Amino acid sequence: MARVALDGMGGDFAPAAPVAGALLALNELDREHRVQLIGRVAILHDQLRAHLGGEFATLAAVADRLDIIDAADVIDMADRPSAALRGKPNSSMHVGLRLQAQGGSDAFVSAGNTGAQMAISTVVLRLHQGVARPAIATVFPTALQPIVVVDSGANVDCSAAELVQFARLGTAYAEAVLGRPNACIGLLSIGEEPEKGNAAVKEAHQALVASGLNFQGNIEGRDLPRGSSDRGPFDVVVCDGFTGNVVLKFYEAVAPMMIGLLRKHGADDTLIGAAFGHLDYTAYGGAPLLGVNGISIIAHGKSSARALKNAVKVAAQAAVSRLDAHIAERLGEHAGPEAVA
Amino acid sequence: MARVALDGMGGDFAPAAPVAGALLALNELDREHRVQLIGRVAILHDQLRAHLGGEFATLAAVADRLDIIDAADVIDMADRPSAALRGKPNSSMHVGLRLQAQGGSDAFVSAGNTGAQMAISTVVLRLHQGVARPAIATVFPTALQPIVVVDSGANVDCSAAELVQFARLGTAYAEAVLGRPNACIGLLSIGEEPEKGNAAVKEAHQALVASGLNFQGNIEGRDLPRGSSDRGPFDVVVCDGFTGNVVLKFYEAVAPMMIGLLRKHGADDTLIGAAFGHLDYTAYGGAPLLGVNGISIIAHGKSSARALKNAVKVAAQAAVSRLDAHIAERLGEHAGPEAVA
Repeated sequence: MARVALDGMGGDFAPAAPVAGALLALNELDREHRVQLIGRVAILHDQLRAHLGGEFATLAAVADRLDIIDAADVIDMADRPSAALRGKPNSSMHVGLRLQAQGGSDAFVSAGNTGAQMAISTVVLRLHQGVARPAIATVFPTALQPIVVVDSGANVDCSAAELVQFARLGTAYAEAVLGRPNACIGLLSIGEEPEKGNAAVKEAHQALVASGLNFQGNIEGRDLPRGSSDRGPFDVVVCDGFTGNVVLKFYEAVAPMMIGLLRKHGADDTLIGAAFGHLDYTAYGGAPLLGVNGISIIAHGKSSARALKNAVKVAAQAAVSRLDAHIAERLGEHAGPEAVA
Repeated sequence: MARVALDGMGGDFAPAAPVAGALLALNELDREHRVQLIGRVAILHDQLRAHLGGEFATLAAVADRLDIIDAADVIDMADRPSAALRGKPNSSMHVGLRLQAQGGSDAFVSAGNTGAQMAISTVVLRLHQGVARPAIATVFPTALQPIVVVDSGANVDCSAAELVQFARLGTAYAEAVLGRPNACIGLLSIGEEPEKGNAAVKEAHQALVASGLNFQGNIEGRDLPRGSSDRGPFDVVVCDGFTGNVVLKFYEAVAPMMIGLLRKHGADDTLIGAAFGHLDYTAYGGAPLLGVNGISIIAHGKSSARALKNAVKVAAQAAVSRLDAHIAERLGEHAGPEAVA
């Protein structure tokens, strides 16, 4: 059983998209799971009534597994993380995450202000022992199978020790949530040889060889779209958050650009859907914030109801598979600060 | 008039591809241009005879603008740059670049060992005053128009001052070779705000604002495929060589992956060619090594005859437009080491 708290006020299409996403998720999840919609109660009740009175009338039965929980403050997309953290103590993020810290919820999902979610998750849930800052893990569709990229934007200047920690966090996520036992790690670099890369990457390569993790070696940009290098498939890609963010935003944009060119030259939607349907990032719903003591899933600001439905399902899966305990175990295999050359 | 030296021994498909590429280039270039094919004379003469006796019989007339110049040593793709530089003083790279340094040639093109080409170009041509290391500029097709990415692999750990220098070098290239007066620069980062990015990027942002260059501000990964940000189109993308290399290799691989998916689902080659023909990287032929005192163009190791033809045309264009003088001028606008905050 999982109780997933969903931020009803966060994201470009809130509150409509979270309310619809909650109903769609409950309709697909097993009956023991619940969704806790957090935000201004009057607004959320109005939205729910409107949805159930119209397009979602057939889903009325699932609404008994939906709890609406009040949060007086609303965080704006433009709020500075520190201002949201200290100035809006009754925001939907604070309320949802505090509920989890107190044992009344199992996971939190938001499409709102990412910086605020990182800051509030870190303070309210706290970090696993030995983790200095959380990392964002993004699931990335490939020609072969989805892979996890850690870090995809939380940490821009990374040491070799941090890169090794991303490998431990990503391994735990791939194992617990993607169902990849003994997940294989690739270190993103500019050549497959260990001596290729920037200073942090070269040092991390040596530390990963000695880490006891299932480390394949360096991978290159060309290996990302196929999810495999010449040495075989990988499950986790380790990189600093600057490189990860640039590559992910590029990937999100290059497929629509190519689809636009195809449409302009007369391709029909059936072909486009058949060829590229599985490359849709909304299918993976959200990016977990790894390293916090609990489950906090970051959804895209532009998340549709369908994307949020998938994010809630990912959150339920993370809770049921005990992602958090898995991470504690993976981090606990290693005592003390990461040994780097 | 330009005399372009082409490495006859470098690349996965040498010597056939360089010999055919030289003939194709001469056929398309104005009659005042010449190609100097550098390598083992006997091998190159045999190849030339075979080509002119067969597939290229109609191009016999252009062969009078082709010079074959002997180079006894051959650099292997696996040779270490330092070993190639010192141990093979009569390689095709040494001979071609020395000819340029002595005034007997105007540009050099090779599809051979990139590290060796960088090392030998730096030593033989020397660097422009104030340049610590050369940078690789790659022309990158977008939905709008081609852009130049500097650096795309030569410098992995970059200071803010180096990033600003890449902006000066890229501007000169875009102006002289791509014909973009007052070329507009975007700094690759993880958000459009000046305070987003890693330490070097944030510092470079401030220095670029004060540089006198046409600096648009930060751009993001999502802006690359369309060649434009919310602030408008850009001509030059500045980034460290680690990020640049990862993104370019990713881009080279993602288009073929998507084309493969389309073919699998029954798309025909007419549609694919019409939609994506202009995204073909071989159309841009080669990546200039910027910062050296002269013209040295790096072609892809897998270059076909057609790709090398285009690289020779780019080299001729760079020579005719006096890229080198343009770079000296752009660097000279700025006296002394780059001022960074």
